[in-house]
Amino acid sequence: MQLNALTQLYLDFLKSETFIGTPTTLYDSMNYIMSLGGKRIRPALVLAGNHMAAGTPNSALPIAHAIEIFHNFSLVHDDIMDAALVRRGNPTVHVKWNEPTAILSGDNLLIFAYKYLLNYDGPNKDLILSIFSDTAVKICEGQQWDMEFAYTPAVSEENYLLMIQYKTAVLLGCALQCGGLSAGISKEHSHLLYELAIDIGMQFQLMDDYLDAFGEEFLIGKKSGGDIIEGKKTWLYIKSEELDKNTESWFNSYLGDDRVTVIKQHWLSMGLDKMILQKAEHYKLRAENKIMSWEQLGYSSEILTEILDFLSGRKA
Amino acid sequence: MQLNALTQLYLDFLKSETFIGTPTTLYDSMNYIMSLGGKRIRPALVLAGNHMAAGTPNSALPIAHAIEIFHNFSLVHDDIMDAALVRRGNPTVHVKWNEPTAILSGDNLLIFAYKYLLNYDGPNKDLILSIFSDTAVKICEGQQWDMEFAYTPAVSEENYLLMIQYKTAVLLGCALQCGGLSAGISKEHSHLLYELAIDIGMQFQLMDDYLDAFGEEFLIGKKSGGDIIEGKKTWLYIKSEELDKNTESWFNSYLGDDRVTVIKQHWLSMGLDKMILQKAEHYKLRAENKIMSWEQLGYSSEILTEILDFLSGRKA
Repeated sequence: MQLNALTQLYLDFLKSETFIGTPTTLYDSMNYIMSLGGKRIRPALVLAGNHMAAGTPNSALPIAHAIEIFHNFSLVHDDIMDAALVRRGNPTVHVKWNEPTAILSGDNLLIFAYKYLLNYDGPNKDLILSIFSDTAVKICEGQQWDMEFAYTPAVSEENYLLMIQYKTAVLLGCALQCGGLSAGISKEHSHLLYELAIDIGMQFQLMDDYLDAFGEEFLIGKKSGGDIIEGKKTWLYIKSEELDKNTESWFNSYLGDDRVTVIKQHWLSMGLDKMILQKAEHYKLRAENKIMSWEQLGYSSEILTEILDFLSGRKA
Repeated sequence: MQLNALTQLYLDFLKSETFIGTPTTLYDSMNYIMSLGGKRIRPALVLAGNHMAAGTPNSALPIAHAIEIFHNFSLVHDDIMDAALVRRGNPTVHVKWNEPTAILSGDNLLIFAYKYLLNYDGPNKDLILSIFSDTAVKICEGQQWDMEFAYTPAVSEENYLLMIQYKTAVLLGCALQCGGLSAGISKEHSHLLYELAIDIGMQFQLMDDYLDAFGEEFLIGKKSGGDIIEGKKTWLYIKSEELDKNTESWFNSYLGDDRVTVIKQHWLSMGLDKMILQKAEHYKLRAENKIMSWEQLGYSSEILTEILDFLSGRKA
C-alpha cells in the first residue's frame, strides 16, 4: 500500500465518524475544525506504522482518528492563544463562534481523542494509551515554551529545537510508533519508529521555516514572509540573534513595505538560507539512517521513504 | 471509616502528588489551582464508594485524584469563559498568570486526570475509564448549555435541571460509581450509586441557589445575592420567569443599591423560597430512597447519610 491509499483509508473512516450531540454549537464547531482538511499526515503515519509491520491498517483506525482529533484540539486552543484569525483559509473556531465555545470545543475534542483510543481493541493497548498521554503532555509543554520564548531574549538554538520537537515532532513520533505497536511489534522496535518520525518532523518544521522565508509563492501556495510579518521566532531568527547581537534591533526597526525583502536580504547575506537547509538535511540524514536500521530489523520501509520525500518535497 | 477520615486519606495523597515539570509556569499554575482547597467532596465520594463495598480505599486513590484533577481542570477553563476574577478567595489562574497559560494549564490537568486513571490497577478499569470519559463529555455539554442559556429567553425548568445535572451532578455520580466499581461491585449495582449521587448533587445545587439568595451571611460565609448581582439564571430566576412573564423586565430594571433586597422580596412574595426548598427536598427524598435500596443489596450505607447531611447541612 502507498501513502495515498492509507490516507484515503483514513479519509473514508473520517467521513463516517461525524461527531453527533447537543448543544449543536459544540458539535458543529468540532466537526468544522475536523473538516478543514490538511495533509492528514498523522493518521497516515499511524496506518503506515501498522502496514510496515504487516498489520491490518483497518484495526488501527481508532488510533489514527484519536491522533488526528488530538491534533485538531491543539489547533483550536493554539489559535485562541495566538489570536489567529485564519486556519487553512477559513475563520478559526473562536472567530466563527466565540472564545468560550472554542475552549469547550477543544476540551471535548481532547476527551473524544481518548474515547477513540479507549475503543481501540488490539495489541499493546495500555502502552499506546501511555505513550499518547506522555506525548500530549509534551505538546502542552512545547506550546507553553513557544509562548514564553516570544518574551525571552536570546533563546538558544538548543532550546528552540527542543521546543519544536515537543510542539510538533513528538506527535508524528507517537503516531508512527503507535501504528507499529498496533501491529504487535515490540516496545524496543517501536521506539525506533518514534525516534525516526521525530527526525522527519524536525526536518519538516525546519523546511517550513525555510520555505516561509525563502520559498517561491507558487510552490508553497501562500505569500512568503508570513513569519517575518508576525515577528515569529523561527530558527532563522534565533540563529540570526546568535550570530548578530543587533538582530532584534534591525529586525524591529525596518517597518516599510519592503520589510520582508530587506530582512530576507539580510539573512541571505548571513548565509542563513544555506544553514537552515543544512540543518534540515542533518535531520533528513538521521531519518534515512533510522530507516535503514528499521529495514535491517526485517520490516518493509518503502512507505517511510515516500513519507520523507512527501514532507521534504516542497523544497523551493 | 467516616467521611472525615476518607477526606484526610485523600488530602495526604494529594500532598504527595505535586505536579513537577517544565516550563515551571505551567506546572506552578496547575499546583496553584489544586491547592486552593474546597470540600474535596469528589475524591471523598470515590473513596466512600469503595469503602461501602468493603474495598481498600487506598487502591482507589488514583481514581479519586483523577476526578479531583478533572474538577480543577473544569474550574480553570470555566473561570476563563465566565471572566471570573476570584476563585475561593484567590485570583483565578488566568488573572494570576494569563489566559493562554490558563488554557494550557487546564489542558494539561485534563491529560493528567487520564494519566492517573490509566495508572489505576484494580477491578473494572476499562469500565471506569469509559464512565469517566462519558461523564467528561456531559460536563462540557453542560457548560455549553449554561453559556447558551444566558442568551436564551424562557429556559424551561426541565432544561435548566438537565443543565445542572450535566454541569455539576454527573461528576458526583461518576465519583461514587467508580469508587464502588474499584471495590469490584457489578455494573448494575454501580449504576444505583451513580443515580444516587446525582440526586445528592441536584439537591446540593438547588440548596446552593437557595442559599445564595436567602442564606444568612454568617452561615454561607459570603454575602448573599451574588447570583442576583451577576444576573445568573438560577432555578429561582427560571421559575420566576415561568410564573411571571414580566420577570426579565423587573429583574433588570431595579438598579439601585437595594436591588438584591427588592428582588429577594419579590421572590419571597411569589413563594419561590419555599418552592426551591421543596424541590431540593424532592431530590433529598429520592436520594434517601436509593440509600435504602443500596442497603437492601447488603452494602453499608452510613457514610452516604453522612454525605447527604454534610451537603445539605448548610440550610439557613
